[in-house]
Amino acid sequence: MEIGIIGLGKMGLNLALNLVDHNHKVVGYDSHATIEESDFSQVSSIEEMVKELTAPRTFWLMVPAGEITESVIAHLTPLLEEGDSIIDGGNSNYKDTVRRAATLKEQGIYFFDCGTSGGTAGARHGICSMIGGDAEKFKTIEPLLKDISVEDGYLYTGEAGSGHFLKMIHNGIEYGMMQSIAEGFDILNKSQFDFDYEKVAGVWNNGSIISSYLMEMTKNAFSKDAKLDSIKGVMNSSGEGKWTVETALDLNVPAPVITLSLMMRYRSLEDDTFAGKVVAAQRNEFGGHAVEKK
Amino acid sequence: MEIGIIGLGKMGLNLALNLVDHNHKVVGYDSHATIEESDFSQVSSIEEMVKELTAPRTFWLMVPAGEITESVIAHLTPLLEEGDSIIDGGNSNYKDTVRRAATLKEQGIYFFDCGTSGGTAGARHGICSMIGGDAEKFKTIEPLLKDISVEDGYLYTGEAGSGHFLKMIHNGIEYGMMQSIAEGFDILNKSQFDFDYEKVAGVWNNGSIISSYLMEMTKNAFSKDAKLDSIKGVMNSSGEGKWTVETALDLNVPAPVITLSLMMRYRSLEDDTFAGKVVAAQRNEFGGHAVEKK
Repeated sequence: MEIGIIGLGKMGLNLALNLVDHNHKVVGYDSHATIEESDFSQVSSIEEMVKELTAPRTFWLMVPAGEITESVIAHLTPLLEEGDSIIDGGNSNYKDTVRRAATLKEQGIYFFDCGTSGGTAGARHGICSMIGGDAEKFKTIEPLLKDISVEDGYLYTGEAGSGHFLKMIHNGIEYGMMQSIAEGFDILNKSQFDFDYEKVAGVWNNGSIISSYLMEMTKNAFSKDAKLDSIKGVMNSSGEGKWTVETALDLNVPAPVITLSLMMRYRSLEDDTFAGKVVAAQRNEFGGHAVEKK
Repeated sequence: MEIGIIGLGKMGLNLALNLVDHNHKVVGYDSHATIEESDFSQVSSIEEMVKELTAPRTFWLMVPAGEITESVIAHLTPLLEEGDSIIDGGNSNYKDTVRRAATLKEQGIYFFDCGTSGGTAGARHGICSMIGGDAEKFKTIEPLLKDISVEDGYLYTGEAGSGHFLKMIHNGIEYGMMQSIAEGFDILNKSQFDFDYEKVAGVWNNGSIISSYLMEMTKNAFSKDAKLDSIKGVMNSSGEGKWTVETALDLNVPAPVITLSLMMRYRSLEDDTFAGKVVAAQRNEFGGHAVEKK
């Protein structure tokens, strides 16, 4: 098939190369830089990309969620014809996706939302993808999804928004699994025993109930730095965990573990907390317990 | 090697058959019943088992943790000679293990604690095992561990107690991972979208960051009952999660996710809660908010 990829960052470039490997004709565009890459053609504007592709066209957006995705779609849409398709491969909020799909549908343009998991290596050699949008039109782009994914690694998830929704929940689950693994190692680290964490993660990944891709990554990390002495425990987050918690709140779903995993990430961003000061001050007020002065 | 297995329940019997497959001479004993099984010899008492084995003997206990393990060890110990080894393959509390190992050491008996993961299928065809105890003596029983485990699936964890400690933490992590996956599906289930959970678990298990043995089990469960309509969400627990939380408390480790996973299991055991009544009554008292009457 023919496909235009907008956004040639770590994910977009690897995806483009993955598609080329599967004999698709890729036209790439990145607003920031031209990649030194000759396996696929590159253009210097979205207008040029639209001209380069034969209708009905398929575009894959691999740009940051939010304003950039919004502006790329706003730029691209007036150039398109009825029957063209846009696949948003970023981590957009599913509510934005539902809105965009409805607007584009009025113009006869198909909008698909594709959540992807597997990181940059996955983008290059096979990802896990969850895609929502028009069921009939999906059949025409299904070969692309099949080719970029690992075996049995793509799922048509239903109406527009469902792909990004599923990816959001995937990331929420990821937060909880990571925090649980992390707490376990934290207890090991304060215990009376002297464990080799690389070996622990290794054996847990061979035949145990908690064997997982995340445990494999944990093992890799400990293999490079046995006690992780060289890094700080600052846990950033990129949005999907927060959206998962917001969604749980909207739907009245008790999700304490995913929620607390996110809160622990926020806590990790602060060296000290105002809440800690308040509790220390209260204990001092009612019980005369010593406070630590700055 | 020659080994006596005490306890021929689901785990012990499968372990015995696994050892027989690897050409070890197994003598089995179970206080409750004789298994109809001719692949290894069975005896009708612990005394008989001791006579049947050549010193230095190796015994594998696969009996419930707590009082039963305690009484089997108390029964077995006076019959043993210096240099004999007892491996406790159950989920004993590591504090009991540390105590037992110290007592038995005074009598010249080696005590090993072996945590195992992988369920009954693992016991039959290859488990993940974590074993603590005397480092020198371990070398003599290492072939057994190697044979019953999957490839690279056993770890000598250090002094006595460390094997059960590591298995305890493994189970604590398991609680958190399971609860996180469960919360994700709970949000999906209340969402506006109509997902096929078997397919969701399936695609998440192919190339995604959250692919795991637990996700595979989740997929299997949904394949048998698409919405789990036939079962109740009652989540029992067997002790190791509680010990993990107790240990986190003893060591002052913040482990909110593992802790809340356990609390959510406790919550699931009650149809209604007294805490819920208290909050409903408080809201009624201060705000006149309606309460639901029985």
